[in-house]
Amino acid sequence: MKYTYFDHAAATPIDDKVLLAMQPYSQERFYNSSALYAPAKDVLHSLEQARSQVAHWLGCRSNEFIFTAGGTEANNLAIFGIMEQYPEGNCVVSAIEHDAVLRPAERYAHKTTSVDESGRVSATELDSLVDDSTVLISVMYANNEIGVIQPIREVTKKAEEIRIDRSTRGVKTPLYVHTDACQGPNYLDLHVSRLGVDMMTLNGGKIYGPKQSGGLFVRRDISLKPLIVGGGQEKNRRSGTQNIAQSVGFSVALDGVQSIKSEEAERMHGLQKIFIEELLSTVPSAVINGSSKHRLANNVHITIPGTSNEIVLLQLEEQGILAAAGSACSADDLSEPSHVLQAMGISDALARASLRFSMGRATTEADVHHAVDALARVA
Amino acid sequence: MKYTYFDHAAATPIDDKVLLAMQPYSQERFYNSSALYAPAKDVLHSLEQARSQVAHWLGCRSNEFIFTAGGTEANNLAIFGIMEQYPEGNCVVSAIEHDAVLRPAERYAHKTTSVDESGRVSATELDSLVDDSTVLISVMYANNEIGVIQPIREVTKKAEEIRIDRSTRGVKTPLYVHTDACQGPNYLDLHVSRLGVDMMTLNGGKIYGPKQSGGLFVRRDISLKPLIVGGGQEKNRRSGTQNIAQSVGFSVALDGVQSIKSEEAERMHGLQKIFIEELLSTVPSAVINGSSKHRLANNVHITIPGTSNEIVLLQLEEQGILAAAGSACSADDLSEPSHVLQAMGISDALARASLRFSMGRATTEADVHHAVDALARVA
Repeated sequence: MKYTYFDHAAATPIDDKVLLAMQPYSQERFYNSSALYAPAKDVLHSLEQARSQVAHWLGCRSNEFIFTAGGTEANNLAIFGIMEQYPEGNCVVSAIEHDAVLRPAERYAHKTTSVDESGRVSATELDSLVDDSTVLISVMYANNEIGVIQPIREVTKKAEEIRIDRSTRGVKTPLYVHTDACQGPNYLDLHVSRLGVDMMTLNGGKIYGPKQSGGLFVRRDISLKPLIVGGGQEKNRRSGTQNIAQSVGFSVALDGVQSIKSEEAERMHGLQKIFIEELLSTVPSAVINGSSKHRLANNVHITIPGTSNEIVLLQLEEQGILAAAGSACSADDLSEPSHVLQAMGISDALARASLRFSMGRATTEADVHHAVDALARVA
Repeated sequence: MKYTYFDHAAATPIDDKVLLAMQPYSQERFYNSSALYAPAKDVLHSLEQARSQVAHWLGCRSNEFIFTAGGTEANNLAIFGIMEQYPEGNCVVSAIEHDAVLRPAERYAHKTTSVDESGRVSATELDSLVDDSTVLISVMYANNEIGVIQPIREVTKKAEEIRIDRSTRGVKTPLYVHTDACQGPNYLDLHVSRLGVDMMTLNGGKIYGPKQSGGLFVRRDISLKPLIVGGGQEKNRRSGTQNIAQSVGFSVALDGVQSIKSEEAERMHGLQKIFIEELLSTVPSAVINGSSKHRLANNVHITIPGTSNEIVLLQLEEQGILAAAGSACSADDLSEPSHVLQAMGISDALARASLRFSMGRATTEADVHHAVDALARVA
């Protein structure tokens, strides 16, 4: 069956250019990058070129980016890497973080900042939760379920005010801001200085790169306790034989999405508008969840009251449309309503009537019409 | 330049069959294995088939194998996963473990069991180090530098005696045996019941599979604290979007090496014999390090007294031969002599005159003659 794919927030196919760039490292250039001979050093050089390419889009130095096996590991490294060093410290995370941030944070003293009904964090509320033992704030760049873009610049400005205040009061506790930007690179600016973040997680599997590729930006003056230790690769911050193919693939994927992000965002915004307008005119009971202004261009998150998302998804699939309810990571447990929708004040009943459509490079206007027609039939 | 590669213990090229098996998951079958629609469930099914194939060679149940991003992560998961649950506990590791075992063990109360001059652990000495607080023993299956195969069966028998003794004395502390088997699959039996181990680390990058693939066997009644948390993949034992390509690639690689391990071991033993005999006759001062009886068939580890391995390696490379000194993981720091050779009682001066040649599928008798001729010229 030929499917129309509306789940790009869960996974993307690998881009042709990415595959081509990865290919040499399987057989001809398979060397262990820690070995001493010239062919291994050449491979290491390619890895460092990949790191520079990533650093270019982040506006950081090369040695500020650690390659990891994907976004979950990078989020774990950020949270554990800081919190393990401050047994008396606490962290503040938003209520709509991915589980890869929430589960690590739960191992420590932590507070949760809420979101408004549009799905956005308030920097003021966040500020009120920070105390003199808070060492880490983690707020995602754009939410994976509802696509709502968070006010990261406001969060990092507030953190800077807190740091200045601490300094005047002689409080020595540092305060770091981490952002999980796994959903960001397709359409958003990743420049870490403009964002003001200290750590940022990236993930290849959502940007037409290989799964379990990606990494963590860590500002150069920050010391992290490593999560995976051993041979001391990645300057002792992530041990294990380096996977050059994955890292090169990730860098080419990042380059691919970042270099066309404005055009793609514009195209996606057009499709998003058509999707929403057509849906609201054919299924008047439908509700669009989350901010319409601060929103990833490819995300359409809807509730059709009185329906069951589990049944609607099956009916859509029968019509060749692949969409999602909630994030893929917790997809196998639909009995639990989404913690993101709960945090927005959406009732469990409405949460169970909610669907996520996430568009991508392959999505056309015809696909959008197809999706709305199918929704109209099943609603 | 065409190189003759003698560093298979550091890295292996990916097998054609492995590449072919991985290929569909890049573009056609790129789905997130946690998604609900049929094409994603098909992909998940392929992952579980790969897991069964691995379990077949280990003689374990499918749900006893956790896919990780490589051997280092699996070793970390084994050590941290047990030790984090026993704050009062200690572990006993051998002095010749890989850094991916030693560095995690160093975070806890730990004791180190020595090796004899042939590079082997003594189960009796190990026994003397175990006390009633010891919860974990970690002894590698075959050493990555000197290729010496450890008496795992003796270690696990001793552990069973200790468990019985504890039980009769009412001591409740459990005792688990972990083995790092990253260098094992090419030539050795991996059946976990025959070996008697509770946990075993495998690594795709040394068996003609993808780098950063592999995983950890964990006996089904053992509870591990996960190292990477989040979406709850791998039955909550290793979170992160599953990398089907890597896991399928690993399983095909394991199948590939295990199904020809006896023939390949025989062929390698033949080449090993030629290598050693020719070397000793042309370079009489050369010494072979480590047990000749309990030794991986592809490993030739030598010392040529009075030489510098750094210089010899460069001279060999000029003649087209790629070999190693010590493990690749610490290769960038040749100033530190190998902890493995130190543990065998080899002086720092001799350790710095030592080289590892590790053969593999592509190695021919002509390659061996070439290596010995080159060594004779530079010695």
